[in-house]
Amino acid sequence: MPTLDLPLTVDRSAGEPLNVQLTGQLRAAMKEGRLAAGERLPSSRSLAGVLGVSRTVVTEAYEQLYAEGWLEGRHGSGTYVTEIAAAPPVRADLVPTALTPESWERPGRPGTLDLRPGVAWIGALDTPAWRRAWRLAATVAPAARPDPHGLPGLRALLADYVRRSRGVACAPERLLVTRGSTNGLDLLAATILKPGDRVGVEDPGYRKARSVLAARGADLVPCPVDEHGLIVDHLPDDLRLVYTTPSHQYPLGGVLPVPRRQALLAWARRTGTLIAEDDYDGEFRYDVAPLPALYGLDPDVVVYLGTTAKILTSDVGVGWLVARPDLVEAIARRRADLNDRTAVVPQEALRLLLERGDLERYVRRMRAEYARRRTVVAEALHGLRLRGDTAGLHLVVELPAGRTERVVREAAERGVLLDTLERHHTGTPAAFGLVIGYGSAANPTDLKTACTLVRTLITAP
Amino acid sequence: MPTLDLPLTVDRSAGEPLNVQLTGQLRAAMKEGRLAAGERLPSSRSLAGVLGVSRTVVTEAYEQLYAEGWLEGRHGSGTYVTEIAAAPPVRADLVPTALTPESWERPGRPGTLDLRPGVAWIGALDTPAWRRAWRLAATVAPAARPDPHGLPGLRALLADYVRRSRGVACAPERLLVTRGSTNGLDLLAATILKPGDRVGVEDPGYRKARSVLAARGADLVPCPVDEHGLIVDHLPDDLRLVYTTPSHQYPLGGVLPVPRRQALLAWARRTGTLIAEDDYDGEFRYDVAPLPALYGLDPDVVVYLGTTAKILTSDVGVGWLVARPDLVEAIARRRADLNDRTAVVPQEALRLLLERGDLERYVRRMRAEYARRRTVVAEALHGLRLRGDTAGLHLVVELPAGRTERVVREAAERGVLLDTLERHHTGTPAAFGLVIGYGSAANPTDLKTACTLVRTLITAP
Repeated sequence: MPTLDLPLTVDRSAGEPLNVQLTGQLRAAMKEGRLAAGERLPSSRSLAGVLGVSRTVVTEAYEQLYAEGWLEGRHGSGTYVTEIAAAPPVRADLVPTALTPESWERPGRPGTLDLRPGVAWIGALDTPAWRRAWRLAATVAPAARPDPHGLPGLRALLADYVRRSRGVACAPERLLVTRGSTNGLDLLAATILKPGDRVGVEDPGYRKARSVLAARGADLVPCPVDEHGLIVDHLPDDLRLVYTTPSHQYPLGGVLPVPRRQALLAWARRTGTLIAEDDYDGEFRYDVAPLPALYGLDPDVVVYLGTTAKILTSDVGVGWLVARPDLVEAIARRRADLNDRTAVVPQEALRLLLERGDLERYVRRMRAEYARRRTVVAEALHGLRLRGDTAGLHLVVELPAGRTERVVREAAERGVLLDTLERHHTGTPAAFGLVIGYGSAANPTDLKTACTLVRTLITAP
Repeated sequence: MPTLDLPLTVDRSAGEPLNVQLTGQLRAAMKEGRLAAGERLPSSRSLAGVLGVSRTVVTEAYEQLYAEGWLEGRHGSGTYVTEIAAAPPVRADLVPTALTPESWERPGRPGTLDLRPGVAWIGALDTPAWRRAWRLAATVAPAARPDPHGLPGLRALLADYVRRSRGVACAPERLLVTRGSTNGLDLLAATILKPGDRVGVEDPGYRKARSVLAARGADLVPCPVDEHGLIVDHLPDDLRLVYTTPSHQYPLGGVLPVPRRQALLAWARRTGTLIAEDDYDGEFRYDVAPLPALYGLDPDVVVYLGTTAKILTSDVGVGWLVARPDLVEAIARRRADLNDRTAVVPQEALRLLLERGDLERYVRRMRAEYARRRTVVAEALHGLRLRGDTAGLHLVVELPAGRTERVVREAAERGVLLDTLERHHTGTPAAFGLVIGYGSAANPTDLKTACTLVRTLITAP
């Protein structure tokens, strides 16, 4: 009869059942090699006697370890520790190291003034309406198999919203609920692209969209932009898809004029290219009413991407994609295949905010606040070369080449975080300056302080 | 002075401002070609007189259309419709047609009994606790720049949960909050894979994991499984990653024994391969306590993927990934780069469910219910060749080759939806039968009815 040279103990005052205690001690001993492979364990009767526990405690522990594969052999003819292979050391090169760390936007330290773009002002969030929406949304029974198109009620209300707010007239069948613009772009790419397909991207343009497309195997083709937006005449004829921001080019701020829109659509029809229109801040234009979306001019070649990231917060995680019905169906199937979905509670919360008119009230309040902020920024930076200041949540200050690095560094030393225009280019920058976001600042006063500092740094000799 | 041959009218009793009415009518006319390119518009004074409105109404409409690019020229020297390119017809081949439509699981019609796997039983969802969690979660102020790792409080509680429930001892720094297992796998793939990297997948195995990996450019290498799980001896040495389900192989149901686990880890260390462990239903085992996760044996080469999809619902959209800290950091950076995130309100709701012990109470209730259901299924199908019936939310009924198609069709005619084992293979099936999920049925009685029918169909001559 084998005996065990191991400090096995059971503690009746501990909350843990005795068999679980014993299982854990035996498992640890085998893991650490104190109980070696091939070693025979005492019979359950004998070990129970030694430990002063019922035999059931030991047989339950053995059964668990047997099920886990630590033990082998039948109880009648003896129980043995199984053969366990020795583990060589881990190779050092398992983890990639060169992973674009610069693209990770860390939150600023407390006390810093953040002028980087991409963040919506959330100070005016209608808290009672917001809470009410989530509270009611949580009372909806969860679905076992959620519809990859999104909640029918939300699709109908969003179709209505994009028509009223963005001139996108569409039946709910043309609208798929996403988690946001980049999720919509990702799903489109995963549906229509083959590896190596050439995809046009604006240069300078939205980096995360480029990352999303490249991560689906796209061969990115940088397409130059000017102060009006994408330069359509220079588009090559062999693209599968073009990603563009016609309402407010990111980051230069141009609003694509109708003749270029028409030329872009004619080119797309001639070459068989789809256009992904990212309308990320299309709700916000201050000099005139927001421009209707490109989609409205040709709903067959444009895929319209919208989001709540700029009108609520990026936290809500709900957006929409509008496209021709056959493409919407293909995307929904592909999405189910990839197990990608929009959670139902946030969808229901957004549905309630839309149904009650809370969302549009909030957009009106934001538009008024952004107009105020835009004036603050424009006044503080008056006389400098400003671009893209009639729409959106950011503008651009053009600077001579080689000038931005010092301004960014000196601003950071004084607690103001800035973003450069250079960073948004794919290769050698064609334009230089700062991209000033006016969503992150807590209030117009902070914004004025930060912009005044930036002006001082720029105009310093 | 040009005159307009257009039925322009304004309606003072309509809610819409007069300038908006006029803008819309002029835009529609230009879009439809009734106002042709190059045509000159009347002066604002003259049109105002014709319409009987103030001149401001017309100048505002002109300014809007000028900003949109429909009009050109200065108001002083005349206003013209811009040149607009004519659009050729849409090409027919823009939309892909061959897109795995069979993988789209449609919900069953009312009255059908759904025995397909992949759905958690949600009948026992603790509604007051669930609602309380979402209600309180909605009172948390949204973050402007959410942390790509997830909420710190949730990371700490999840680290504690995976240790207690799954034997995964980890510091919160090793845990990243995802939207679920496949989201974790997708982020891992997007971080470590280069196009064409060879990735091992279980065959038969989880189709959606294969789709996710292939969509990131992986070259999939099917790896055979037997009744114990992945066959480790047959793994090729040139893989970058292996995706596996050791706790309960999907769909065959094997529980990977410790010797194979050790051999798998030794192979991984020798070849420099990472292992993605999908612990999709690791909480559920009925004969003995759940097996500890593979991760616990070697936290440096295993990436552990967990989800709430099976313990709450797939709607919550929160899961977790546990890995070595350098890999977690690389994944978090990559995730920010792809604009991928887990919404904060669901994270906070899960944090509250964990903090109050509601989640674990719910898991215990589910485990009891699944054990009941497993017994119902096993009794109803007694005598047939069953596999994988000691764990999880599904089991397999083996059938002779060529037998399943008729059973599935006849069951569907009688309102019972079934899934086949064949469907989970990458190529020619090596095993044949049905994958019976016991999560979707509303109650054990329905389950028994459906299983009895299946038995009848299988044993019919």
